[in-house]
Amino acid sequence: MRAAVYHGPGDIGVEEVDDPQVEEPTDAVVRVVAAGVCGSDLWTYRGQGSAQPGARIGHEFVGEVVEVGAQVVSLRPGDWVVAPFRYSCGRCGYCTSGLPSSCPHGGFWSREVVTGGQGELVRVPLADGTLVTALPDGSAPDPQLVPSLLTLTDVLCTGHHAALCGRVVPGSSVVVVGDGAVGLCAVVAARLHGVEQVIMLAGGHPARAEMAAQLGADVIVTARGADAVAQVMDVTAGAGASSVLECVGTSESFSTALDVVAPGGAVGWVGLPHQVELDLARVFARNITVAGGVAPVRAYIPQLLPAVVGRTINPGVVFTDVLPLGEVARAYELLDARQTVKPMLDPTC
Amino acid sequence: MRAAVYHGPGDIGVEEVDDPQVEEPTDAVVRVVAAGVCGSDLWTYRGQGSAQPGARIGHEFVGEVVEVGAQVVSLRPGDWVVAPFRYSCGRCGYCTSGLPSSCPHGGFWSREVVTGGQGELVRVPLADGTLVTALPDGSAPDPQLVPSLLTLTDVLCTGHHAALCGRVVPGSSVVVVGDGAVGLCAVVAARLHGVEQVIMLAGGHPARAEMAAQLGADVIVTARGADAVAQVMDVTAGAGASSVLECVGTSESFSTALDVVAPGGAVGWVGLPHQVELDLARVFARNITVAGGVAPVRAYIPQLLPAVVGRTINPGVVFTDVLPLGEVARAYELLDARQTVKPMLDPTC
Repeated sequence: MRAAVYHGPGDIGVEEVDDPQVEEPTDAVVRVVAAGVCGSDLWTYRGQGSAQPGARIGHEFVGEVVEVGAQVVSLRPGDWVVAPFRYSCGRCGYCTSGLPSSCPHGGFWSREVVTGGQGELVRVPLADGTLVTALPDGSAPDPQLVPSLLTLTDVLCTGHHAALCGRVVPGSSVVVVGDGAVGLCAVVAARLHGVEQVIMLAGGHPARAEMAAQLGADVIVTARGADAVAQVMDVTAGAGASSVLECVGTSESFSTALDVVAPGGAVGWVGLPHQVELDLARVFARNITVAGGVAPVRAYIPQLLPAVVGRTINPGVVFTDVLPLGEVARAYELLDARQTVKPMLDPTC
Repeated sequence: MRAAVYHGPGDIGVEEVDDPQVEEPTDAVVRVVAAGVCGSDLWTYRGQGSAQPGARIGHEFVGEVVEVGAQVVSLRPGDWVVAPFRYSCGRCGYCTSGLPSSCPHGGFWSREVVTGGQGELVRVPLADGTLVTALPDGSAPDPQLVPSLLTLTDVLCTGHHAALCGRVVPGSSVVVVGDGAVGLCAVVAARLHGVEQVIMLAGGHPARAEMAAQLGADVIVTARGADAVAQVMDVTAGAGASSVLECVGTSESFSTALDVVAPGGAVGWVGLPHQVELDLARVFARNITVAGGVAPVRAYIPQLLPAVVGRTINPGVVFTDVLPLGEVARAYELLDARQTVKPMLDPTC
């Protein structure tokens, strides 16, 4: 089969590799229908991650089960499934209490499992605990739904996690920091939670601002730093927002998040932090809660799937470019240059 | 009147100063019956705070109202009251939503108000919003209750805040980091919340360990660093505690708190942080919530007063030494040397 392979900084391309097989009786093999390229994949692309040349890549995929191991009971070949960005057992205390991201039996694609999502086939360990059928009978969904279903593998659930960690409540004001795919999905999630006012701190890219508005942002702030903070204070009667959803993961974005959160409020953060240190003295007087981390995506997929399938939400618009798997290098170039919000790869062509 | 005055590092003594007066129609003047010396006062004592020589000190006091301004409606001379460590209006959005610590009209004793709690008389601004009568009719309580009532001014409410921020729930395991008066009160608060197991990380002082056990700690860990972490893991089946109450405020104590909290758990922190930086990468994978800050004491006093007056709890035992106001220098020496858990000053002798 063909799969994306990391060759070194700035160099990810497609190679012919061995087809994955069912190795354990709890495995499934999935034929990928669509795969996403994630902002966090850029750390690998830029040579700032732990991946060594030759590593597979990709952790966002939806597709069709082609083979299952002898102990897989809830899936059969032909089932159309959504995969979370981390596999998990579905049975341990963490999985059953809503925190599959901490399942000790789980792991990440292209790390604990060799195969990555950006390829034609993926070996899925612990398939019963990991995969979710898009429709109850396992049948294929309307192809128009594929982009939105693909957001369930990571960015929509991650935006939802930011909203829950940021304690959004109906009627509140919410600031979303970051206009990447996760930030845009956080707007969708905040709307689903019934908040009154969504303020997006965007990076000045007009198409992204337009998309944020389309997804439900009421106020788009394109200024940065102190000017952005002043604008948020203006539209929140000087109080700041009770919930701030930090969807970038840099020191600058986190600092802005702390500046615009109201006393007693919460910063829900989901951006993979790179050398972000939080000075607790900054939040002591104001009683700010800081909550977040790796989204427990497997727990959220069933919660959010009805809104996707029922077309209450349309987060799939974040996939602004669809490229054949063979053009994966181009997909990374576009994302790295912020010339796409998020690329979708099609391994079938 | 006599009052404690900061003269410079290591030098706090009693001076004769002018009696405070009612200056605003919303003021009251309170004659102090008992005052506490707080761990945070040590920052001033050690010359590490912002206080200048000549400043008054003390923010924990209970006493009797001697005079009220013309607009004070809920109090009259003779009322026996508990003061929170920060005054507040009682009417603004923060006060009415449980966050009087952020009241924009409020302030701190010996800062925004000249008089401090460690003196014979205190001028109390916004008296209606600030003071709470110990008993509904304003009468004087049983003198035996005075130490426990005095804990309501700060340390008991601060321990309670740690418990709420640490999301303690009935049946859970809780680690308390720190065997100072706040840590000991956090044990009391955790017990009030019905937790299953309270594990105290104590500093190796036998009398404090004994007091922690008396107040409800099930397990006392006297080791430090990696050994302490290993012992917590031993008694929590390897999982860590879902709630950790950080009651010290140093980098070392905070680091230990992060080591012993379970995935998905919360660190409730109330120790005034001195150069504590939280590396978010340490908590990302485990989804740790970090919540805390200045306790909204005025909101908690009415909640905890019934347990004190009804003798359900006896947090007053943290006052291990009672000294006349004239011996305030000795009180600071004892606390600085950790030869007392917490000193109580008696300005009436």
